[in-house]
Amino acid sequence: MQLFKLATGELPNEISDIRKTTMATNITWHDNLTHNERADLRKQKGVTVWLTGLSASGKSTIACVLEQYLLQKGVNAYRLDGDNVRFGLNKDLGFSEADRNENIRRISEVAKLFTDSCCITLTSFISPYKQDRDSARELHEKDNLPFVEVYVDVPIEVAEQRDPKGLYKKAREGIIKEFTGISAPYEAPEAPEIHLKNYEGKSAEDSANEIIEYLVSKNYI
Amino acid sequence: MQLFKLATGELPNEISDIRKTTMATNITWHDNLTHNERADLRKQKGVTVWLTGLSASGKSTIACVLEQYLLQKGVNAYRLDGDNVRFGLNKDLGFSEADRNENIRRISEVAKLFTDSCCITLTSFISPYKQDRDSARELHEKDNLPFVEVYVDVPIEVAEQRDPKGLYKKAREGIIKEFTGISAPYEAPEAPEIHLKNYEGKSAEDSANEIIEYLVSKNYI
Repeated sequence: MQLFKLATGELPNEISDIRKTTMATNITWHDNLTHNERADLRKQKGVTVWLTGLSASGKSTIACVLEQYLLQKGVNAYRLDGDNVRFGLNKDLGFSEADRNENIRRISEVAKLFTDSCCITLTSFISPYKQDRDSARELHEKDNLPFVEVYVDVPIEVAEQRDPKGLYKKAREGIIKEFTGISAPYEAPEAPEIHLKNYEGKSAEDSANEIIEYLVSKNYI
Repeated sequence: MQLFKLATGELPNEISDIRKTTMATNITWHDNLTHNERADLRKQKGVTVWLTGLSASGKSTIACVLEQYLLQKGVNAYRLDGDNVRFGLNKDLGFSEADRNENIRRISEVAKLFTDSCCITLTSFISPYKQDRDSARELHEKDNLPFVEVYVDVPIEVAEQRDPKGLYKKAREGIIKEFTGISAPYEAPEAPEIHLKNYEGKSAEDSANEIIEYLVSKNYI
């Protein structure tokens, strides 16, 4: 057993005692921590908050607000979305049915790892198919990891009116094929934990607040 | 802007004020937090600690000790290994050369996500090929995320002597084909950040201590 060498410099407060201590010898090391053991150590539970909804429904904006709010409150949170998944982990995948399924499967698995690590894991993907979302839920619940489905609901007319990236226009023109809500189905959740009606003057902060209220009411945070 | 409804029950201290506050209105929400912005909020940096070495070199045990030590010190840490990756995210992959490459590629991408989330990310995979490890490093460094290669070095004779799962025996008998160190190459790192000689009476705690000393010396923790 070695003593830590003391180094100079400033450490974050919560871990400032690392340099002053040796590793405890009376700890039983487990091969694998259970999520509950980890949650006790981290003083935080993990939960996957799965946002689903049409393109331009506001999923990413809500997730973004929620993530930054939680981080500012000292809660570990992370957002998985197209920006950091489609161009990295899933860059080998296209838009065939098989590839779309594999896209959601991998996202589900990665979300589960983050949640196991005691993170409030926010996923914002259209995820239009009930079966994919149910598979994501099943993957979590079989290992007793919580999964919260959030339906970010806007009428298609509202989404098409917003159209911040011009995607609906391209879909109407036939430039984009199989576009959810126009030329491909969106299977709305039947019994989501949270049903946000994210329109008629409601802000992303309002919707984020509804999610936080839910997470607090369930003692996830 | 809605007020949070007050709910009953106990919250972890660090987030106990969530119920007492409204969401601040003076915050600029960024579409994507940079890692440095996130690290400032989390008061913790992320780093991928990539352990490489022969089967039975002690990678997983060291990672396990290190993870639990960090968690007990209040540091967010998570371990990616065969148990939570091979049977989940990468369950569609076999052991062909292409699949082995894809296995390490996905692990690299997921490690990068965890590190971006400000986690001390521990990966324990044999990862015998220099090119794979270099790709993992490159993936991190192109986005200014730190990557620390840890060579868990034991002589093949020591690893074969330990053989806790009987894998070397099966490899010698030809039951397992292309086994690293026996019938497939292990390309030792030439310039790892940390070179652990994990034998001759050195314990997993000793090796974990060496890694912690390094992380402290570089201000990662």
